[in-house]
Formats: sequence, structure tokens, C-alpha cells
Amino acid sequence: MTDPIELARSDAFARRHIGASADEQRRMLETIGYGSIDELMTAAIPEVIRWHGTLDLPAAATEAEAIAELRALAERNRPMVSMIGLGYHGTHTPAVIRRNVLESPAWYTAYTPYQPEISQGRLEALLNFQTVIADLTGLPVAGASLLDEATAAAEAMTLARRAGKAKSNVYVVDADTLPQTIAVLATRAEPLGIEVRVVDVERDELPSEFYGLHLQYPGASGAVRDHAALIAAAHERGALVAVAADLLALCLLREPGAIGADIAVGSAQRFGVPMGFGGPHAGYMSVRAGLERMLPGRLVGVSRDADGSAAYRLALQTREQHIRREKATSNICTAQVLLAVIASMYAVYHGPEGLRAIARRTHDVAARLAAGLTAGGVELAHGAFFDTLTAVVPGRADEVVAAAAGRGVNLRRIDVDRVGISCDETTTDEHLAAVWGAFDVTGVEAGSEVLPAGLGRTSDYLTNPVFSAHHSETAMLRYLRRLSDKDYALDRGMIPLGSCTMKLNATTEMEPITWSEFAELHPFAPAEQTEGYRQLVADLERWLAEVTGYDAVSLQPNAGSQGEFAGLLAIRSYHRDRGDDHRDVCLIPSSAHGTNAASAVMAGMRVVVVACDGDGNVDLVDLDRKIEQQRDRLAAIMVTYPSTHGVYETGIAELCAKVHDAGGQVYVDGANLNALLGFAKPGQFGADVSHLNLHKTFCIPHGGGGPGVGPVAVRSHLAPFLPGHPLHAEKGVGPVAAAPQGSAGILPIPWAYLRMMGPEGLAQATGVAVLSANYVAARLRDHYPVLYAGNKGLVAHECILDLRPITKASGVTVDDVAKRLIDYGFHAPTMSFPVAGTLMVEPTESEDLAELDRFCDAMIAIRGEIDRVAAGEWPAGDNPLANAPHTASMVTADDWPHPYPRSLAAYPGGGDRSAKYWPPVRRIDGAYGDRNLVCSCPSPAAYE
Amino acid sequence: MTDPIELARSDAFARRHIGASADEQRRMLETIGYGSIDELMTAAIPEVIRWHGTLDLPAAATEAEAIAELRALAERNRPMVSMIGLGYHGTHTPAVIRRNVLESPAWYTAYTPYQPEISQGRLEALLNFQTVIADLTGLPVAGASLLDEATAAAEAMTLARRAGKAKSNVYVVDADTLPQTIAVLATRAEPLGIEVRVVDVERDELPSEFYGLHLQYPGASGAVRDHAALIAAAHERGALVAVAADLLALCLLREPGAIGADIAVGSAQRFGVPMGFGGPHAGYMSVRAGLERMLPGRLVGVSRDADGSAAYRLALQTREQHIRREKATSNICTAQVLLAVIASMYAVYHGPEGLRAIARRTHDVAARLAAGLTAGGVELAHGAFFDTLTAVVPGRADEVVAAAAGRGVNLRRIDVDRVGISCDETTTDEHLAAVWGAFDVTGVEAGSEVLPAGLGRTSDYLTNPVFSAHHSETAMLRYLRRLSDKDYALDRGMIPLGSCTMKLNATTEMEPITWSEFAELHPFAPAEQTEGYRQLVADLERWLAEVTGYDAVSLQPNAGSQGEFAGLLAIRSYHRDRGDDHRDVCLIPSSAHGTNAASAVMAGMRVVVVACDGDGNVDLVDLDRKIEQQRDRLAAIMVTYPSTHGVYETGIAELCAKVHDAGGQVYVDGANLNALLGFAKPGQFGADVSHLNLHKTFCIPHGGGGPGVGPVAVRSHLAPFLPGHPLHAEKGVGPVAAAPQGSAGILPIPWAYLRMMGPEGLAQATGVAVLSANYVAARLRDHYPVLYAGNKGLVAHECILDLRPITKASGVTVDDVAKRLIDYGFHAPTMSFPVAGTLMVEPTESEDLAELDRFCDAMIAIRGEIDRVAAGEWPAGDNPLANAPHTASMVTADDWPHPYPRSLAAYPGGGDRSAKYWPPVRRIDGAYGDRNLVCSCPSPAAYE
Repeated sequence: MTDPIELARSDAFARRHIGASADEQRRMLETIGYGSIDELMTAAIPEVIRWHGTLDLPAAATEAEAIAELRALAERNRPMVSMIGLGYHGTHTPAVIRRNVLESPAWYTAYTPYQPEISQGRLEALLNFQTVIADLTGLPVAGASLLDEATAAAEAMTLARRAGKAKSNVYVVDADTLPQTIAVLATRAEPLGIEVRVVDVERDELPSEFYGLHLQYPGASGAVRDHAALIAAAHERGALVAVAADLLALCLLREPGAIGADIAVGSAQRFGVPMGFGGPHAGYMSVRAGLERMLPGRLVGVSRDADGSAAYRLALQTREQHIRREKATSNICTAQVLLAVIASMYAVYHGPEGLRAIARRTHDVAARLAAGLTAGGVELAHGAFFDTLTAVVPGRADEVVAAAAGRGVNLRRIDVDRVGISCDETTTDEHLAAVWGAFDVTGVEAGSEVLPAGLGRTSDYLTNPVFSAHHSETAMLRYLRRLSDKDYALDRGMIPLGSCTMKLNATTEMEPITWSEFAELHPFAPAEQTEGYRQLVADLERWLAEVTGYDAVSLQPNAGSQGEFAGLLAIRSYHRDRGDDHRDVCLIPSSAHGTNAASAVMAGMRVVVVACDGDGNVDLVDLDRKIEQQRDRLAAIMVTYPSTHGVYETGIAELCAKVHDAGGQVYVDGANLNALLGFAKPGQFGADVSHLNLHKTFCIPHGGGGPGVGPVAVRSHLAPFLPGHPLHAEKGVGPVAAAPQGSAGILPIPWAYLRMMGPEGLAQATGVAVLSANYVAARLRDHYPVLYAGNKGLVAHECILDLRPITKASGVTVDDVAKRLIDYGFHAPTMSFPVAGTLMVEPTESEDLAELDRFCDAMIAIRGEIDRVAAGEWPAGDNPLANAPHTASMVTADDWPHPYPRSLAAYPGGGDRSAKYWPPVRRIDGAYGDRNLVCSCPSPAAYE
Repeated sequence: MTDPIELARSDAFARRHIGASADEQRRMLETIGYGSIDELMTAAIPEVIRWHGTLDLPAAATEAEAIAELRALAERNRPMVSMIGLGYHGTHTPAVIRRNVLESPAWYTAYTPYQPEISQGRLEALLNFQTVIADLTGLPVAGASLLDEATAAAEAMTLARRAGKAKSNVYVVDADTLPQTIAVLATRAEPLGIEVRVVDVERDELPSEFYGLHLQYPGASGAVRDHAALIAAAHERGALVAVAADLLALCLLREPGAIGADIAVGSAQRFGVPMGFGGPHAGYMSVRAGLERMLPGRLVGVSRDADGSAAYRLALQTREQHIRREKATSNICTAQVLLAVIASMYAVYHGPEGLRAIARRTHDVAARLAAGLTAGGVELAHGAFFDTLTAVVPGRADEVVAAAAGRGVNLRRIDVDRVGISCDETTTDEHLAAVWGAFDVTGVEAGSEVLPAGLGRTSDYLTNPVFSAHHSETAMLRYLRRLSDKDYALDRGMIPLGSCTMKLNATTEMEPITWSEFAELHPFAPAEQTEGYRQLVADLERWLAEVTGYDAVSLQPNAGSQGEFAGLLAIRSYHRDRGDDHRDVCLIPSSAHGTNAASAVMAGMRVVVVACDGDGNVDLVDLDRKIEQQRDRLAAIMVTYPSTHGVYETGIAELCAKVHDAGGQVYVDGANLNALLGFAKPGQFGADVSHLNLHKTFCIPHGGGGPGVGPVAVRSHLAPFLPGHPLHAEKGVGPVAAAPQGSAGILPIPWAYLRMMGPEGLAQATGVAVLSANYVAARLRDHYPVLYAGNKGLVAHECILDLRPITKASGVTVDDVAKRLIDYGFHAPTMSFPVAGTLMVEPTESEDLAELDRFCDAMIAIRGEIDRVAAGEWPAGDNPLANAPHTASMVTADDWPHPYPRSLAAYPGGGDRSAKYWPPVRRIDGAYGDRNLVCSCPSPAAYE
């Protein structure tokens, strides 16, 4: 069916997506001893799960056809002027940033900066982001971004509980908070036993006991209030206070840190990131000193490399879920790196004075709008505001909103009597005139500032030179290029990361996301303006259900971790709906990614670990034992398939049956779906729910560490328990993300991928991915033991190389091999997951044979180097592995004290010397940076 | 008026375009001792030409406003399905190429590869282009692109005359040639005394005497004929034969070389380059062995560097106009590099099999179209075709064309009885149905191949491995990145090229050119479908006239050289119109660029050189003498202002008056207009005509050596003599380019620039450009003599550093300094023009103070190195200058035999070592390559 890959049409997209040509595939099959991909897959995949149909998807479109169809969908969206507000604002993405970040493969095809030596560019950009957040919020430590404002608020809610001294389980939430934030807080609070109490903090008393307080600043209504007294009152009760703050407003208003906040959260969307029908955007969090080790998500810090030079890397990683597993306090993995980079560069490009001018202009235009309404007799709900007004028009709200829409402007219908109007940097005189017209008033020439007395900002921000050095477009362009040149991304070579599926992010998939019809829609725009998006979402839900064998899909979760949470919440709700409230145990194999356990805890479950056998498979005997022990309380099992060991476990169907027999639900983590599409469907071989990673299997680029999209797919009995949204008329268990469709703005990518691959193309991709992994395993097996294998000694789509015996014999570690691969021009595979001391290689279907061979040749050459170390030819502490990676600066030094030649340091892999990628720094000392934590831009002197 | 630069709006584009901030400008003014830019300009510019008004242009728009206006213009274009043909065809630009070449600053901001060591990427791409052309045409040597098919045909016409033995002045042109080609041939032939004789070569006898023959293959009508006998007949008469061939057709048809052609010309447009309302596209020319030294334009060849490694550079440059001046045989300077790169990458991406499949599909669809028409009783004019049919519908052509337009398809109205229909790779079943519908026939399911027997291609093409290695998108993406990484472009740093004005090419200017509404229009599309373009052209003509002080502008010339030719042709026609046929002398100062002289010769003029005085100014005494000598025959003087010496000559008004008094016209070369905008207008200080370089002053990027756009601007008395076009109802002297509006597709760039700068912004840019040049001169004057200066010791927008005394004292040449600058991270200034042994520096207004200082610091440090050579500290043959540029491979070599340390070789400039640009090759031996000419992709063995 799927081989050899010679699609009828020479313009078939699958031929571009799949790296190996038909001829190369034949040669690879020969190497591993199979006659065809079908034969290989039949051998590799247990027959009990093998699915033999043809996917019910539209036949593959060419790139031109897919673009034409997306164009037609785009034209069914009608971007209007959005003055809805609610955390989503019009913004001008500077064109130089759009083209050279959002549309640049060097930025968007980069991986998460786990190999910091080859990620210095995006780490610097993220450090800039942290500095922007820390400066503007007035709190010293900011993380490298969270998923959105609502989930950031939820993270603050749990952080406050861990950090505070108050015994209460009550979390007080300002009634003037964004409604989607309140809804997400409620969803996240319930499984954890937190009581969210919404209080009109202006009018009503605070409860006598609560452990935390959430304030919105300015309020969702637009009101700007001085919260200092309220914060002091909360502190008196031992509670911590989180302030959800608007970054642009903070350019003019007193910063949260200055009014006493412990935590600030929010969104960086309006710093140049398109609304995108709700996302992706960078959420943010910053905290006061003392809380930095509790920050959820990633934190970039400054450390030093082997030469003592300043170098960036992720700091304090032991806080994270992948280390702490069920003791984790958050399941956040992905950040929103690409969007955080854009927001940071917006601040770099405008600088403090530019941002202040934008904030000032935004405020001025709102003040003028207000003056015009007031002059026309329209009552405003509050006198102090930054950019948003609430107009009180008893009984007339619908009429006013409709009149504005007729003039091309969307306003916010708060209720029958009130209309919200939000200004931003894109607001023009014409927009004001349209709004005035909708209210039937005539407008005015000028307004006056109406920020409350005493709330004006007095402190400086963005004083680091980086925010003043790149204000011309030429300087900005060069800064972006210089940073991206420091990094290694898919546009340079293979990133064989096990479990991360770093495949092609095709340009045709990427182009539509910056079309204004997809980029410039507000998530709460009226349905008749968003038909194209709704069709696209419906298509994608249907197609994803088909390829996974499930019955319903929600695209709302804006990261895999959120998909896990939503899936487990569906299971929880299902049990509770049936009166099985006591079912709260989640079985998780020892090989699972730590996120699984963290998500289970977030969903109110207790984690019970199931052992793996010597082959890396779930130990079915131990499973029986654990089921027996937990039978009454069994809620679910959470497994990854193929396993995190890269193997098609043959016991999967049996496993599903055992859990079902005990009344549990089966959650299959979709991280490894790239090994299944077209050959097996989790929803049909026994699973009840999965989350998918659209940024893995479905081609959304990793963006240097986000955005990700993690839809949740369920069988029909769980469908009623998918996430809902307060601003939509859907039922469900409450939202898990701020926007109804999560990161809708990047959904054209998986849509295009599925549309262009078609049923045959998807199956072919799976086959070639498995072929490539087995080819690599076959070529490397004699040099590095391949740790696990399934049927007939075959791996699935990735393979684990066991370095432990080699390390034992030579002292050379996985780290050394990973860093030495940089010298050979590669990004390292996954290190020490799922087994410490190993490397997990996932080549994907997009690498051609030349690149696979280049990688295998490098690994074999490195093995030769290891042998020379083991033989004592080079000392353990001074050899090409221990000193890797080698920078140009090191290799060109006047002195060369090392026992191996410079040429071996610099050009071990052969090939075109003039095309060598040079890492910008030597090996980084992570521990030094953790001991000396610096998480915002250091002063230039620090580099000297 | 223009200082300090603090425009009212913080979002003013001028603040992004101009590099130096207001504060930096003040510091620069202080250094040179002026209080304000206005004061500086008053001192620098002779009052006699100074213009004191405010330009009558619309007030500056912000980037967002300009994009909105361009969006509105775009929406007034209505791209339909084009089946017009005539050398312009629908094509799918592969998205990966669009994004990573056409939309990538690394490619489009590159300069012409005069510094080959830092241009290896685009030189390789051009070598690929030459290989594509040579292979497909079957002629061994192809150039690196010409301006379009029509001008390439004109170049062939003159090449044939130089190379052939026949005494005749008759050039026979196949009547089935593209009408625009015939028209351009006529324009170009007349001043040279060539008689173009259009002959129906199928029906009529060839004349008994002619020196050359031009054939179209396939014909404009679509007919495919075997020209072999005709070519043999021409050869018998001693004539040379040029075949204008369609590259896609050549994938199936016998190649021109195989049927005896001496020269092949054509367009590479349909290899992935958008139609763009006529351009820019890459024209091509290839020739048989023996003619390579006569090729016009640029030729890339393989040579070797100081290590003996293969390296590319421009070959046989002594053929070129800038060397040969009035002895030049062509005035071509610019190639169409960016478009040639796209076309070459289209071939690399598809490979020989892919191209054959596209050609086959295109032919099949045309065959089916034909079968359907024939079955429906429509007569076709010829039975053998590749992609284009001529349908004979007596008296019904208009009706059919209108019916097709009603169905969304444009056909070619040949005359009242005949309709042309051209298929391409974008043609779909729906398009066929529309055409059949327009002819009122029902269509058929299949057609059969109708290529003439014996004309099928039997030879291979694109057998070099490069055409088989990059067929997956991943591989293609990495190839494009790898090549661009080898090059130094404006996105890395300053390119201070005197006379070339390498300023910012802003993203907002660039974005619209890839919008489909601008990219996908056929140049002969009906006027009602191209309203947006026509408005844009009208605006641009008006604005350019305003800023230059002329009365009329033609945007047709698609390079500066063509603008020169058009301008001189206007002068020639003016004189002849007045009966002054004898006026044929063109005075040209000795300092002029060689192109001026070459253009004058092409326009049928005799060049008389006017001397310059010791200060580099035109010697007015010698001018008097020459005028006296040539008074009766004086046609024109051609001068550059400010002069090519970078000086505002004070005698310019007097010079104009003298020439006018003698009955001559004054041509001011607009190359240096960047020193005048807003401060002086050539059309008002005495000139009659100028060409402008939109790729210099008006921000069209240099694209690595093209596209350029060279409009011609004239005072009203010359307006009737601007270029016309046969397919437009305009009068004039005949077209100078294939398309009525030349390279219309990139005109949104200067439109956006003018729209966003506004009158104040333009003047400010001029002021800062002059300030920057004087700042550089002031900082370097003590280290390098500044050769010329005008009023008060001020230079204009560029300055000449005189290396001659330094070379004399030290042996270090301009070449050494230029190459050493690469080690410091810079592109060299212009070398040895206009004065041998000098460097001409033009910083432009877009560089900020940090970059200007980095450059000056590098030049000063290099001067220090020179002094050490002069002092004998380092031997003349082995020092950092003589060995520059240093590659990473050289500096990391195990042995280091040089008398200076590696660190000085590698990192002479300080700064961020991790951001260093490493040149891919060492200094290239150009002469070796000229002696051993290789102009297509060498086999991989050649690199070993």
C-alpha cells in the first residue's frame, strides 16, 4: 500500500515532506533487510493493534491547491476593527520582526534550548523578555513565558498556596477580572480543593480568611484603581497577592511591585503579537525576591562557559515537572518562546521612550473617546482608565454594538446595559468617529489625561543598553540575524530528538498564519465574522478524530501539558458524573514523562507507579498487582504508545483490557503518534482519550520552545466532558485556556499538513519515520548498544543508544557525546530520557539518506574518539569530547595546549569547511549560574 | 528645517530608515564642526543649485498607513487566470524559495559579487543558473542573466554583428517572434545603422544577404517548427543565428545547440518567477564555444583561492563596459541576480525529472485543450505546438476573448480573427473548461502528444549532482541557508560602497511585492484588471518628477543602463525631430562611469572626453575647448552630480549653460541623487534629462546584483521622446524593455519609500547621508588622505580615500585593504573607481553611529597594520593584509607559519567573537580562472 513512495503526481507534497527519495528508501530497506515498508511495518507493529483501512480524509491536495483552499477559508473571515479588549488588543507587529522572526525558519524551526551552547540567540531574546517583564512589573524575577494570561493566573493561584502561610483554601478573585481568567481559575481550582471566591473588591469586604488574592490591573471594565491598600490588607492576613497587569498600561501606571504585589501575571500579546483568534501569545509571570525557585515553567539565567565567558542557559531546572514528576507543582513544559521573542523584540525596537509614547497615545485616544461620549451625554462607569471604557447605555447595549459593527468596529457587549470599548496603538480618528457614531454622539477634538492621581509611574524601565541600541530598522535586522546565527535550528541540519519529532515545517503550512485574515481576529469576534476559522476548526477536529480513531476532539488546550490536564479532567468528570467520585488513582509506568504525573496531580489524582520489565515494556504482572491494590479507586492508566522507549509494545491491547475490566479509563499520551498514523488508531485499539501534539506529529514548528498545541481527543462517552468556554454557549468541564480555540492562529499549519499529505501521504510518512529509525539503529548497533526493541528486534520511530557501558569503560558521558556532536554539526538527541545515561534518536521521515548517514558517520567517528580516550591515548580531562563543543575563538587561540590537533577539534566530520556551524560559547557551567542567579539582562560590564 | 531629526510622531518611518538618532547626529555634527544639518548642507551645496522649497509630496505615512494604502491599491488589481502567453506564463514559485530567497534579506540585500570571497553563495547559485541555461539550450557558455528576453535578443543582434563575417547590415527576424522583442530590436537597431527585416521564415525566402537571423522557438503563435534547415541556410551566408527559446519547452524539444544555433536567448520567468506585471525576470543568453568572450553582461566562473580550493568569481571582466568605456559592445551592468537565483533554485528543487514532468504536463494539457477545440470545430492555425495554440475564429476573436474573461481567463487577442491560448504549469481542468466554454465547445477527456516528429529532445540535462540533491523541502531549505550564510549582505553589516547607496531596504517596502495582487499580473492584462498598478505607476511618476524637478518620467527602463540609453535616445530623437541629425557628439568627463560612454555609443553617438582638473572637477576650460571643436555636432553632455568624485561641483550651473548655449542637451546621471533629494533638483538647475536608480536612492534592494530599475526623467521638451510600447497606444521612440512598465513588480518598493518618508523625511535622509560621509571623512582624514572635496573642504555623500601614497610607501594595495576589511567584518568600499588606487566610501543615511565608528576604527586599525608592514615588521608577502581574508580553516590549521599571531588574523576588530562572519574562501586568483574558463557547475571531483 505505502511503498515504494512514488505518488502519481510529481507535484505531490508528500515527496517534499518526506526526506528520502524512493530510491533512498529502497537502499535503507536493504540495509535493514526488508523488501518493502509494508513488510517492515507488518513486522514492527503488533497485529492486534494494526489497522488496515485507508484513512477517511480528503485526497491529498498539492501545495497550490491547499493554498487556494486556505485562501478561500481566509476570505470567510472578516477582520474588523477590534475594540473588544478583554486581554486581546490590536497591535502593529513591526514588519522587520514579522519577517525576520515569525516568518524566519532560523527562529521558528529551532528546538527548546536544552542544548544551551547552540541556543544562545534565543536565550538572549528570552532574557530580554524576562527583563521587559521584570522591569515593567517591578518584580525582579520573571520567567521565560507561560501559555496565556488565564493559565498564568492559575499558576499564580497554586504558587500562592505553596508559598503562603495562610491556612485557608480560599482564593479571592477580583470581580473585575477577565471572565476567561475567572473560568480557568475555577477549572484549575476544583480538582485541587481550592475555593475560588469572586468578590467585588471595590464594594465588598474581603473574607476574613483567604490564602491568596487575584487582582486585575486595570480591571476588565477598564477601571484603574489603586490596589495598594487592598494588597496590604491581604498581606496582613498572610495571603499572597497576584496582580494580572496590562504591560502597556504599566508604561504609565505604577508597577505591581511598587504597590506591593507578590506575583504579576498577564499577556504580552499587545507587544506586537497578532491576536490570531486567541493565540498563541506569551503569558508572563514575575515574582518578588524569594519566590524565584517556585516559578512555574522555564527561567533563563546567565552563567559562564568553560572559558569563563557569560553564557545563557535554562536555570533552576530541578524545579521543573520533568524532574519532579508527581511532586511537581505545575505540569508546564512548553513556553511560548517564539511569541515571547516577538514581544521582547517589540520592546527592543521601540525602547522605553517608544513604549511610553505608544502607551501615551493609546491613553490619549481613549481619553478623547471618553470626552466625546461624555460630551454627548453617554454615562461612563468609571472616571479613571487607561485604554478601556465601560459605557452605560441602559437597555441599548445590543443596539450600540450592532451600530458599531455596521461601521466596521467590534465593541464588547458586557450586558444589556453596558458596552466595553478598548483602544490600542492601532486606534485611529476614523475608529473614534465610528464609535461616536454608534453611540449617536459627535465627538470632540481633544481629551485630557485621566489616570488617577498618585498612580502615575515614577520608576524607570528598560534601562539596559539593549533597549536603546536597535531602534533603526537596519540595526534591528542585524540584531535579529546575529542572534539567530548563534543558534542551530532545523534549517541548518538534523535535530534527532527522541520524542520530539523535529520534522519539516513546510513553508506552505507556515505562510497562511501571517495572513491578516487569520492573524487579526479577536477570539471573541462575532461568529459571522469568523466563518473561515470555524470551518477550519471543524475540518481539523474531524480529521484528527479520523486519524486517531476517536469520536471527538477539542483544540482548546494550547500545549501538550494542557491537553493532558484536559484529558484527565474528562476522565475525572466522567467518573464523578457516574457517581464514582472515589476513583482518583492514576497508574503511570515508571518510563513515563514526568509531565504525565504532574498533570495527574493537577487533575486531583493520586499517582501510582507501574514498573517496567527488563525490555522497557510495562510490566503486566506489576500492572495486575497495582490494579488489584487500587481496583476500587482506579481512575485511569496513562501510557505512551509506542512507549517512551521507542518500542511498539505488544501488550498494549491486553493492558487496555485489564484497566477497562477494573473500571478504569485508558489515557494514551499522543507524543509518539508519528509512529502510528495510518497504521494504528489509539481510539480503536483500546484507549479512551489521548492528547495530540500538533507541534510534533502535525508540523507546527517548535519555535525554539513553543508554541505548542495539545488537542485532546476522546471516545464518545468522554465527549461531554471536553473543555468548554464561558464566552461560548458550550457545555463541558470549564475551559483550560483563555481562548475558546486555544492557539487558533497556528491551526492552519496542521490543517495544511493533513490536507496536503492525504491518507496515503500520512501513512507513507509513518512508514519512512519507522524505516529511518530502524536504519539508524542498524547502522549504529555495532557501535552503541540499542537499548530496547520490539517485534523482530525492530524499534518504532526512535531508538535509544545505551551509553552506560561506554561511560563506565571510558568515563565519556552522554553529555560529552552530545556536545561533541555540535562540533560535527548536529544537535544532540534527547539525553538521559527515558533512561539516564542514554541518547534517544528520532530521525523522523523528513531527513534524507545523506543527512541520516552524515549523522551515523558522526556517531561512529565519535565512538572512535571514545575508544582513544578509553585506550588512554588522550587524558580523561583533555580530549575532543571533554572539551566539546569547540568555539572558533578557542581553536584559533594563539596557544594550543591540547593533546589533539586543532583540525580535529574544528573539523572532525569532514565535509564543506566553509559551511561549518560554530557554536558561540564553550560548554556551559549550569550549576554556577544556579548558585549565582541572574535572570535579567546583565549590565554590559558583566561581559568584560 | 531638517534638524535635529525629531519628527512629531514616534512612529514616523524616517526614524527607522535613518540610522543615526537625533543625539547621534548631534555628536557627528560636533565632530565635523557644524551646528546643524541645515548649516552643513548650506556650506556643502553650491547656492546656485540649492533649492529651498518643500517637496510637493503627500505628508509622510506611517508604515501601517502605507501598507493600508498599498493594500487598497492591490485590491484594485484583479489577477485572473492568464493564458495570454507572449513570454509571460503562470508558474508556481515554490514556497520554500519564495520565503528563503525572495523574502530573505540575506539574499535580497546582498550587493553585486565584486568581492567574490564574501559572495560565494550567490555565485554558486548563479553558476547553477548558467548550468541550467547551458544544459537546456545545448550551448556551452551562458551568462549570469540579462535584463529580459527582448533586450537579450537585442544583445544577440549586436553580438552577431561583431562575431559574424557577413558584410550586410541586415538582421532578419522571424515574423513569429514576440512582438515586444521585435519592437525592442527595432529601437536598438536604428541608432546603430542595423536594418531589422521581419520575414515570415516559413513562407518567404530569406534575403540574399544578411548578417544574422533571429528565430523564436516555439513561435509566438505557439507553432513548433524544425529550424535546422533555416539555420544551415543562414550559416551558408556567413550569418549567425540567435534562437529565442522557451526553457520549459526545451525540456521536451531538441535544444538550440543541437539544431545549429550560435546563440540562444530568452527568459527564465516561468521557472518560478512571478509575472509581476512584466518583471523583473532573468533574461538569459548562451553561446557556442568561441563566442564566450563576446557575451554581454556578467559571467560567473570557477577559479581557485590562495589555498588552491575551488572558488567562484566573475570571469573575463575586462569584457565589460566599465572597463571598455566607449569601446564597449554593450552597456549592460546589472544582471537580474535575485530572479536568476530563484529560477536556478526552481531547477535545483525540481531536478531534471521534475522539470520534464512539468513540461510534459503543460504539453498534455495544451494537447487536450487543442483536441477539445478541434472536436468542437474550432480551427487551429498549426498542428505542432508545445503549450500555445492559435485558434482561428473569423471575426469572432473579440467575442471569444470577452467570453473567456467573463469566465476569469485572459486570452490573447491576436487580431479580429485569431485568438492565442497559452497553457502552463498552473493550468487546471477548470481553466480548460472555461476556455472551451468561451469557444462554445464541450471539451474532451484526453489529447495526444503533438510535438513534431524528430524534434523530441534526446540529450540529457541537469546531470550535475546539485540538481538531484535537494528535492525534499528540508534539503532545499538547508541548501538555501548554507549558500546565504557564505555571503555578506546588509543584514550583517555596513556595505559602504561609493556610488551604490547601499541603504536600508525596509521590510514594509518589500512585503507587498509578494502579494498575489502585485505578483501575479500579466503585463498585457486588460487595463480594467490593473487599475491598482496604473495608479501606483502614475503616483510614482509624479513623485519622481517632483523630487527631481523634471516634467515627465518613464518607468520602463529596467536597469540604470537602460535608463541612460533611453535618455540619450530621447536627446537623439529631439535633435532629429528638429532636423539636427548631425548632432551626434556626446561629451563625457574623464571621471565618468564607463557605462555612460557605452550607452552613448549604443545611442549612435560619438564620445568626446572632457578632462577633469586637479580637484577632480570637470575642467571648464577643456569643456570650452571641446564645445568649440564640436559645436555643430554637439548633441549632449553627460555628467554625474554630485560628481563621481563625491563632490558638489560648483561649476555645474555654468557647465549646463555652456552646453545649452552650444545647442546641446544636458544629461545628469542620477547615480548620486541620494546627495540631492530635497536640496537640489537636476531638472531645475539646468539638466534636461536624468535616469534615476531606484535600486540606489529609492530603496529597491540590490538583490546580489539586480534587479535594478532605471527610470528616465525629462524636461517637457523631451517628453514626447520617452520610450513607448507596441502593445500600448503610446507614441515615443519605441520600447527599451520587453514590458511596458519594465520591472513593475518591484515598484511598490520606491512607492512605499516615498510615501513613508514624505517631504521632510527625504530631505532629512539626504542631510544625514551627507553628514555621515563627512563624519567618516573627518575621522579618517588623518589616516588616509581624502582625495577630493568641495566647498569648505566638505564632501557630498561619499568620500574617496587615497591609498596611492600608502601603497607606494608600503606595497599594501587597495585590494589588500579591501580583503582585510573582511576580517574586520566589513564589505569593502568601491575599489579603484573613479580613481585607480583609491577606495570610495558611501555610508548612506541608514547606518547608525556605532556602525560608522566600527568602520572607522577598522580602517584606522588597518592603517596601523600597514605601518607595521611599511616598517618592515612583517614581510611584504606574509602579513595580515597580504593574506587577507583569513578563513576559519586557515586560522585553525595545525601549522601556523605566519609572523603574526592567529588571534590577529581571526579577530582583529574586537567585539563579539561569537558573531564573527567567516569568509568561506581565501583570496581568489581571478586570472587563473580566466585562463582556465569553467562557467558551469563543475563535477564534484573538481573540488577534491
